[in-house]
Amino acid sequence: MGCVVQKYGGTSVGSVDRIRHVAQRVAKTWKAGRQVAVIVSAMAGETNRLIDLVHEVSPEPSEREYDVIVSTGEQVSIGLLSIALQDMGVPAESCLGFQIKVMTDSAHSKARILDIDPSRLKSVLDQGKVAVVAGFQGVDDNGNVTTLGRGGSDLSAVAVAAALKAEVCEIYTDVDGVYTTDPNMCVNARKIEKISYEEMLEMASLGAKVLQTRSVEFAMKHDVPIHVLSSFREVSGTYVVKEEPSMEKVLVTSVAYNKDEAKVSLRRVPDRPGVAAKIFNPLASANIVVDMIIQNISREGFTDLTFTVPKGDLKKAIDILQPTAEELEVPEIVTDEKVSKISIIGVGMKTHAGVAAKMFQVLFDEGINIEMISTSEIKISCVIKSKYTELAVRALHDAFELGDEEAEA
Amino acid sequence: MGCVVQKYGGTSVGSVDRIRHVAQRVAKTWKAGRQVAVIVSAMAGETNRLIDLVHEVSPEPSEREYDVIVSTGEQVSIGLLSIALQDMGVPAESCLGFQIKVMTDSAHSKARILDIDPSRLKSVLDQGKVAVVAGFQGVDDNGNVTTLGRGGSDLSAVAVAAALKAEVCEIYTDVDGVYTTDPNMCVNARKIEKISYEEMLEMASLGAKVLQTRSVEFAMKHDVPIHVLSSFREVSGTYVVKEEPSMEKVLVTSVAYNKDEAKVSLRRVPDRPGVAAKIFNPLASANIVVDMIIQNISREGFTDLTFTVPKGDLKKAIDILQPTAEELEVPEIVTDEKVSKISIIGVGMKTHAGVAAKMFQVLFDEGINIEMISTSEIKISCVIKSKYTELAVRALHDAFELGDEEAEA
Repeated sequence: MGCVVQKYGGTSVGSVDRIRHVAQRVAKTWKAGRQVAVIVSAMAGETNRLIDLVHEVSPEPSEREYDVIVSTGEQVSIGLLSIALQDMGVPAESCLGFQIKVMTDSAHSKARILDIDPSRLKSVLDQGKVAVVAGFQGVDDNGNVTTLGRGGSDLSAVAVAAALKAEVCEIYTDVDGVYTTDPNMCVNARKIEKISYEEMLEMASLGAKVLQTRSVEFAMKHDVPIHVLSSFREVSGTYVVKEEPSMEKVLVTSVAYNKDEAKVSLRRVPDRPGVAAKIFNPLASANIVVDMIIQNISREGFTDLTFTVPKGDLKKAIDILQPTAEELEVPEIVTDEKVSKISIIGVGMKTHAGVAAKMFQVLFDEGINIEMISTSEIKISCVIKSKYTELAVRALHDAFELGDEEAEA
Repeated sequence: MGCVVQKYGGTSVGSVDRIRHVAQRVAKTWKAGRQVAVIVSAMAGETNRLIDLVHEVSPEPSEREYDVIVSTGEQVSIGLLSIALQDMGVPAESCLGFQIKVMTDSAHSKARILDIDPSRLKSVLDQGKVAVVAGFQGVDDNGNVTTLGRGGSDLSAVAVAAALKAEVCEIYTDVDGVYTTDPNMCVNARKIEKISYEEMLEMASLGAKVLQTRSVEFAMKHDVPIHVLSSFREVSGTYVVKEEPSMEKVLVTSVAYNKDEAKVSLRRVPDRPGVAAKIFNPLASANIVVDMIIQNISREGFTDLTFTVPKGDLKKAIDILQPTAEELEVPEIVTDEKVSKISIIGVGMKTHAGVAAKMFQVLFDEGINIEMISTSEIKISCVIKSKYTELAVRALHDAFELGDEEAEA
């Protein structure tokens, strides 16, 4: 008898009606004779209500107590979903993090899952019950309640699927899969049937909000097939799986963009060892994620240094850079918020040359200047002026033939 | 270094401001160099909100899942109070039922505490921290979350005090102690300084809402001194302790009344073995609490049977009695809702004769007819017409000299 893990997010369990709707979908799978473990998030809005309550008491709450409080959101959801299932004649049992031993480290509010002991979960399933598992939460060695950070329920689902060696981990969302690009920007964006973990990881870290990055890493490490699909429409979604030979035939799988980064340039930086560390260490200490970094060739002992930071952190970054810039006698810090990062992703790049050249040519043909470039084995990103975002996405989507032909016609 | 247990109810932690107020009181005790374990209820209204949510999903929810959901109310309170304490520089750690091993049986929604392992609690206290314990909740042998029933936080507090061998268990409420009678009815009602467990038990079961009955039983069994006091005014309240010889000098400690019972009489019941069981078993099965029962002497093989039931259960009781009455050919079931039960309580009665006689005389002198009488070792209750309630309470309160002389003057 096969075992399936299903994960429903906060919107899917946002009201009692929606919880009943989820119960019906779960019941359908269970009645088909499969073992089902369901992971649920807190009801939409509930986590924020709890966080507001915490911040009303203290602006800097202890992270241990923060976790004790916010984890109650999922606790309520699993109880309600279990009751809804029982109400339609499906035996169900709610499972809290400490009960099924979702063991994590003690990094409160952003804990990492170390291990899940499958014995209690299996015993629930073997009794013929649906196991309704609280997402987002775990417990450390000392029995302290921990939480996994925003989007952590995806990670819970993948970890439960790994522990149970489930056939598939179904992630129900408000979109019906992963697309070749943003459908709001390209009318002929196509739902991808199957994508590799590596590609999904690049997409997640480029800002696609379908799946949380850590959950994809975990799935890749433990070889858990993920199926991303809609909680509202009953159609097949996108499978995220191990790379298959057939995937390499496709040069590029998707086109992504990110308008949330700003460009920072430091002019005439002395080109000597230790300078980069001096500049970037304070940013890292302040938890500012520096994404692309470009250093031009040195001229007369000086170089230009350009990098991107999240727009929301730009002011903070400049404040932090100022003293270092003065110390290094850097004459100028130039910033530009009107930029976008455009990326193409595909495992096919590993074995095919000329993909980057084609991307640059497409942008050139549209008269778009490339300001920064960064590449990985399966991704090429270019920073361009943000007014060209839509144009670039559509041109690349067409050039790499990602579109749905029917929609195009 | 002494150890104190303090319990704050839902009204005392009903808002963030009140939680801060509680934190200040706790901090004061902690700063005086005592170890403090605090038990808190859910914020006022929160438990009802959760119960409503449960009933929206199903009218007959599983009790296991009900417990998972409603126990989150206390979980939020302990997190918030811990944060409030830390915010004023007092180290604190929240403790859930499963963490400090509040072991109960598996009777969900009305579980009984079997044992509390003090080791984790002691380790928190020995680190110099305030232990902030979730009331109302426990965990069974299989790690299932259980709850103790309404008012269960009092029981949690007494059980924690017993486990820690605390000097005293302070119960903070919205009244400032236990009174000789209802101050709303008698202007010279006096706060009792010290009362025995037995007397408090009688008062609790007669409807005094200051302390939950089971918590008094638990305190009596484990010899935990309770101090009932106000969470709003800083004055000494009432100590509930083991019976002391001095207590027997006082004939009567308090006068209680209960307007919530109705009288039921069955006329001409056949007086033969098994008839009482036939009448009362179905009521017991329907969970209707029959309080006082009186059977008159038999005349010509028939007797009259009179008893009281809660007014809210009267209709249900009559429906249940009807078929039995027909079977037994009882000609008439007479009910009376306009009755009150007046009780006097005091351990002094054990050693003093004539207390009952005095009570009857006082009522007779006021022209009040006694309809039913029941007695225990330390209590005498009379059912009278409810219009005489205030008159009877005041007359007995005066006759047994319970009043505050200053207020009287």
